[in-house]
Amino acid sequence: MTIETFQNPAPHRDYEINHTNPEFTSVCPMTGLPDFGTITVKYVPDELCIELKSLKYYYLDFRNKGIFYEAVTNKILDDLVEACSPREMEIISSWGVRGGISSVIKATYKKEK
Amino acid sequence: MTIETFQNPAPHRDYEINHTNPEFTSVCPMTGLPDFGTITVKYVPDELCIELKSLKYYYLDFRNKGIFYEAVTNKILDDLVEACSPREMEIISSWGVRGGISSVIKATYKKEK
Amino acid sequence: MTIETFQNPAPHRDYEINHTNPEFTSVCPMTGLPDFGTITVKYVPDELCIELKSLKYYYLDFRNKGIFYEAVTNKILDDLVEACSPREMEIISSWGVRGGISSVIKATYKKEK
Amino acid sequence: MTIETFQNPAPHRDYEINHTNPEFTSVCPMTGLPDFGTITVKYVPDELCIELKSLKYYYLDFRNKGIFYEAVTNKILDDLVEACSPREMEIISSWGVRGGISSVIKATYKKEK
Amino acid sequence: MTIETFQNPAPHRDYEINHTNPEFTSVCPMTGLPDFGTITVKYVPDELCIELKSLKYYYLDFRNKGIFYEAVTNKILDDLVEACSPREMEIISSWGVRGGISSVIKATYKKEK
Amino acid sequence: MTIETFQNPAPHRDYEINHTNPEFTSVCPMTGLPDFGTITVKYVPDELCIELKSLKYYYLDFRNKGIFYEAVTNKILDDLVEACSPREMEIISSWGVRGGISSVIKATYKKEK
Amino acid sequence: MTIETFQNPAPHRDYEINHTNPEFTSVCPMTGLPDFGTITVKYVPDELCIELKSLKYYYLDFRNKGIFYEAVTNKILDDLVEACSPREMEIISSWGVRGGISSVIKATYKKEK
Amino acid sequence: MTIETFQNPAPHRDYEINHTNPEFTSVCPMTGLPDFGTITVKYVPDELCIELKSLKYYYLDFRNKGIFYEAVTNKILDDLVEACSPREMEIISSWGVRGGISSVIKATYKKEK
Amino acid sequence: MTIETFQNPAPHRDYEINHTNPEFTSVCPMTGLPDFGTITVKYVPDELCIELKSLKYYYLDFRNKGIFYEAVTNKILDDLVEACSPREMEIISSWGVRGGISSVIKATYKKEK
Amino acid sequence: MTIETFQNPAPHRDYEINHTNPEFTSVCPMTGLPDFGTITVKYVPDELCIELKSLKYYYLDFRNKGIFYEAVTNKILDDLVEACSPREMEIISSWGVRGGISSVIKATYKKEK
Repeated sequence: MTIETFQNPAPHRDYEINHTNPEFTSVCPMTGLPDFGTITVKYVPDELCIELKSLKYYYLDFRNKGIFYEAVTNKILDDLVEACSPREMEIISSWGVRGGISSVIKATYKKEK
Repeated sequence: MTIETFQNPAPHRDYEINHTNPEFTSVCPMTGLPDFGTITVKYVPDELCIELKSLKYYYLDFRNKGIFYEAVTNKILDDLVEACSPREMEIISSWGVRGGISSVIKATYKKEK
Repeated sequence: MTIETFQNPAPHRDYEINHTNPEFTSVCPMTGLPDFGTITVKYVPDELCIELKSLKYYYLDFRNKGIFYEAVTNKILDDLVEACSPREMEIISSWGVRGGISSVIKATYKKEK
Repeated sequence: MTIETFQNPAPHRDYEINHTNPEFTSVCPMTGLPDFGTITVKYVPDELCIELKSLKYYYLDFRNKGIFYEAVTNKILDDLVEACSPREMEIISSWGVRGGISSVIKATYKKEK
Repeated sequence: MTIETFQNPAPHRDYEINHTNPEFTSVCPMTGLPDFGTITVKYVPDELCIELKSLKYYYLDFRNKGIFYEAVTNKILDDLVEACSPREMEIISSWGVRGGISSVIKATYKKEK
Repeated sequence: MTIETFQNPAPHRDYEINHTNPEFTSVCPMTGLPDFGTITVKYVPDELCIELKSLKYYYLDFRNKGIFYEAVTNKILDDLVEACSPREMEIISSWGVRGGISSVIKATYKKEK
Repeated sequence: MTIETFQNPAPHRDYEINHTNPEFTSVCPMTGLPDFGTITVKYVPDELCIELKSLKYYYLDFRNKGIFYEAVTNKILDDLVEACSPREMEIISSWGVRGGISSVIKATYKKEK
Repeated sequence: MTIETFQNPAPHRDYEINHTNPEFTSVCPMTGLPDFGTITVKYVPDELCIELKSLKYYYLDFRNKGIFYEAVTNKILDDLVEACSPREMEIISSWGVRGGISSVIKATYKKEK
Repeated sequence: MTIETFQNPAPHRDYEINHTNPEFTSVCPMTGLPDFGTITVKYVPDELCIELKSLKYYYLDFRNKGIFYEAVTNKILDDLVEACSPREMEIISSWGVRGGISSVIKATYKKEK
Repeated sequence: MTIETFQNPAPHRDYEINHTNPEFTSVCPMTGLPDFGTITVKYVPDELCIELKSLKYYYLDFRNKGIFYEAVTNKILDDLVEACSPREMEIISSWGVRGGISSVIKATYKKEK
């Protein structure tokens, strides 16, 4: 799935955009069972903003993919950085209880000036 | 709609004013459907303070306007900075769920000294 | 998937069992997009109790099934009543926001005496 | 706007459906200013269920309509009863603060047997 | 202050109206110090509904009045019953901490048939 | 300490009065250590209402008294019933954690007609 | 472990006692892994009240016992009914997430008159 | 009303004192209607601490005074700084909904060394 | 009451210990009435840690002592610093409503190196 | 129990991983009674990530071990640092009420560069 973008309406200014999706699901590569999480994207756009509908479809691609929490978080960061080349971006993934333990992963990118 | 102002009663001091409006609505330019959000204005006044009643009417002007989250947030910041020329200002817009995703945008202005 | 059961350890007494699963997902038959919900089963067992692990696997069968909220709620009620023949059972399904609207469905069964 | 319906998948059973929309807006007939509310529909379907997308569009018709809290609540009840002829229905509307006062209205319908 | 009313738009049906005001203040007749409370009016209208703006002004009349919690609650009930002759009405007053103790008073009226 | 009362301003009507005190302390008769609780009095007055200040002083009498949860709850009910002869009264005492366990006791009185 | 009791200080009156313990643990008989739950005892005493310290020790006996949720709930009810012969008793056990599912069990006893 | 003070018991140390009053009311100078707010005083005392009872009476002086949010916040800061000459002080005023908008004002003082 | 200590099991590392007691009571020196508060101790141990049981008994010594909020907070800080000579310590005391006002006091100590 | 690890999928980047377990239990070495806590591990991985299932089993080893709050927190930090050699790690343990007091311990490790 391609992440679509549109022109940042205020590129002269640093400002922060957050998109939170509590309906993310992927598959645990060890057990084959589904994982459920909330994904938050937080970024300072440069020239491009992420289009919301394509972001929703991008997330759907993980529905049947076997991937660890740590890997999915870093992959979403890499894919979205590539898609919109932001000034800064953070991905926060927060996951349901497995074996009595709940998990949160946070990964951050900062454009070199 | 003109945003009205009144003289800052304490211009000798930096202090912070917040106004939160959970009843903001505009229109999505792609679908034509209404968007619903909460707008918070946070600022350090210089010579002028924003008059609340005119702020309420200013927000009403967006009711039938087609505009993206990112654009509306930056436009409110630009309009209010122009209206009261504050020392600092932040606009936070927080939006209802669309396609399973909720969004928050934060834009900040700081007067050059 | 077969729902497994075990002997009720206290059939001489009416008592209530609740199992809540916040990680249910199925597919909207109109849009093909996934729905996300929380399913609660509340029942008074008769001779049999529902085994939890098989309940988890039973829910997984809906992951790629196109089915409306109202139908899935009634189907789970029918399937679980058939599996364990309880004295009473209630299914409550609660669904994420779609088009600004969130939904809850409750269906109830009572054994005739 | 016409409210669309679909066949109840379980008419042999009384069960409850709730749809909650926190993004309702109409206009105060006295001041001409917008009102903001949350509308909950709670019903026991008979032969027909309410289709969600058409419910969303039905709500949009109130966006520029001048109408009191009490009247809009009863009108939604009348319209939805007419559309799907339920066994029972309740409308709960809950409204933002006006003059320091927040309001909730509940109206109920029960089909005669 | 006169409480104004308007015609009930749905007198053929029993339905419930709630108005909650968290900004009520009166004066303690023993200490002369102000009391602060939240007043909720809950009623089933008969021919008349209470107009909100006049209700706000009615509450203002208590601002400098010395009156006990129990008395003010019953007086509001008496006054509002007289103003709109409802089928049923309940007044709930909830008061801030005095001497480490917070208080809630509920009084109910039911029209004889 | 004597509990003082005043004339019920609305004896023609059944209505409910609640007083909640989160600052109650007594002493455990087994360990000599203090217990901390919240006491709620809920009653329908007959001819007399409980005066709040004397209620506060009445509670102070327990500060150094060794008494079990169950006994203190019933004693407060007995004392307050004797003081104001209400139509109905309920005492709810809710206690801090001891040995990992928190406790709530509820005792009720109803005047015979 | 023996559950100790003391004389009910108010046997002439029906009243309710609740003891909540969020620190209960037993062992799953299928996996050998520990289960964690909150146990609430709610009862109307007859001649005897349950002594809290012995209740704490009674719960400790389950720490290494393999037993299902349904069985442990009914066993606690049976043991406590036997210990204090109450007029009524309810046991509510609420359990942590296993396989994405959390559970609550409620069992009730009522003395025959 | 004079704000009374007492000697700081620990002037050798910087420490923070907060007093929060959710029962503040003044009058809007434009509409003549009452405003309701919560006032928090946060300060690092120097030689003097603010006496609580006199603070309560000081707040009462605003009950019938027409004054804007911004002005009242700065005036309380000025008055309390004058009364106790603290090392640092912050006043936070938080106000009920007017025209759909709630407001918070924060003003800060720091003693020059 | 002596505060007992034990050897810090990890003196090679700075780490933080918090103990929160919501069951603190002392006496107001002006009114003679009890005050109720929550005391939090937050510290980085050096050679010694505070033993919890002796901390509980230390707090009991304030039960009948007349002392202001500001003084008790600083006294607890002084006593605990003397008892365990920590690298850093903070005492936070938070007090119930008096005259409509609730209070929080924070005092901090840092060992000189 | 050995803590297992897997290769960090993104070692080129600093990012944070949190695992929270509300089902930890150990034994108080003074009373022999069980303690119950929530353990959070927060770390920036270097070459290795902690495998969740082995973490769950590692925690089980404390179930019958007599150990103080301060010691268990530091021991978990030492063991996990040794297992995965992270760039940074923090352990937060939060414990149930004992003697009216609840406790939280935080210990931090930072790799020398």
